[in-house]
Amino acid sequence: MQHINNHTLNAYPARYRVQLINSLSGFKSANLIGTIDKQQQTNLAIFSSVVHLGASPALVGFIMRPDSVERHTLENIQITEQYTINQVNQDIWQAAHQTSARYLKEECEFQKTGLTREFIEGVKVPFVKESQLKYLLTLQDIMPIKANNTLFVIGEITDILCQEHAIKDDGYIDIESLNTVSLSGLDCYHSTQRLSRLSYAKPESTLYPLSIDGEK
Amino acid sequence: MQHINNHTLNAYPARYRVQLINSLSGFKSANLIGTIDKQQQTNLAIFSSVVHLGASPALVGFIMRPDSVERHTLENIQITEQYTINQVNQDIWQAAHQTSARYLKEECEFQKTGLTREFIEGVKVPFVKESQLKYLLTLQDIMPIKANNTLFVIGEITDILCQEHAIKDDGYIDIESLNTVSLSGLDCYHSTQRLSRLSYAKPESTLYPLSIDGEK
Repeated sequence: MQHINNHTLNAYPARYRVQLINSLSGFKSANLIGTIDKQQQTNLAIFSSVVHLGASPALVGFIMRPDSVERHTLENIQITEQYTINQVNQDIWQAAHQTSARYLKEECEFQKTGLTREFIEGVKVPFVKESQLKYLLTLQDIMPIKANNTLFVIGEITDILCQEHAIKDDGYIDIESLNTVSLSGLDCYHSTQRLSRLSYAKPESTLYPLSIDGEK
Repeated sequence: MQHINNHTLNAYPARYRVQLINSLSGFKSANLIGTIDKQQQTNLAIFSSVVHLGASPALVGFIMRPDSVERHTLENIQITEQYTINQVNQDIWQAAHQTSARYLKEECEFQKTGLTREFIEGVKVPFVKESQLKYLLTLQDIMPIKANNTLFVIGEITDILCQEHAIKDDGYIDIESLNTVSLSGLDCYHSTQRLSRLSYAKPESTLYPLSIDGEK
């Protein structure tokens, strides 16, 4: 087992350090965030930091670097206070990765990457048609993270679009059946293979596997 | 494609809603957080919300519900300002899940689940011996999230312990080779299968796959 201490860590070249530290949190979610500006210019960007915050109210958050290519996403969310989150699947992972290129404000990542805009009635922000699980959010809060000048953007989920077959009897969504991918580090994409669902853990009980529908 | 609107979402039974909303963020990281209290009582708890914040300084965050079983973790971190994060792998995913049971403060999840404590010189907080990638953190900040009364706990990485073979030439850590698992929903565990690493995206260039070492 290699032990990397603080001194060694600080001496690594910047790029090496970025790859290394990005690998530590484990497997990450891969999501495309869709927004629109006042001139009806749509924007799409991949994020690996979308995280569940709570079910009631239904909240998710994500981390934003204000100085990065994703700043158009931030500007648009601040103006419209709405955005969509679209799970990346095995049909679109390369196109999703391409959205991280530094396109100009007037360039649309949908057009540049071949992904398709999809709109629902009464909503201006775009969904990704090819995504099999996606949802609409209303901005709740943008929290500055002092430790490194990033932002934690929090939104409430108002509408969900999902392939019906993936929603199981107890509410669990079988995202593996939607071919949702996961990410490791900065640039590595993975498909998944289910080990099992597990029963609710209790102190003096033995765990048992659950079926995909949540049954014993 | 099923469209679940806000009205339907609010009408779901609580448990169904919890399963559904927990599935939306995509694949999650599975990590064990190790802490110790002033009486040298160790504690271990699984978290699915560990998220990368930045490489310089090296920061990760995680979400904590103050009223949950994980409160011992919070109390200990507030006292000692140190904790470990240990990636969950295919050898220990059931034991890791079992740490979510509501054990009493004086019960130690290491003993109850069969996981092994590991200490490094000069550090009081415990690592998980069976984990193949783990690191030590110093508390930086605990940010209250007003939207749902959770906390965002931020720590700086000071030491990393990792199987040497998994660290590639450019710093990327092949966490799949460590059999690190990912989570979906509340209780479903997954192994992974690498699709590929991808080159850095540029506006007018075509992406190409990278080898696991980050080479063309």
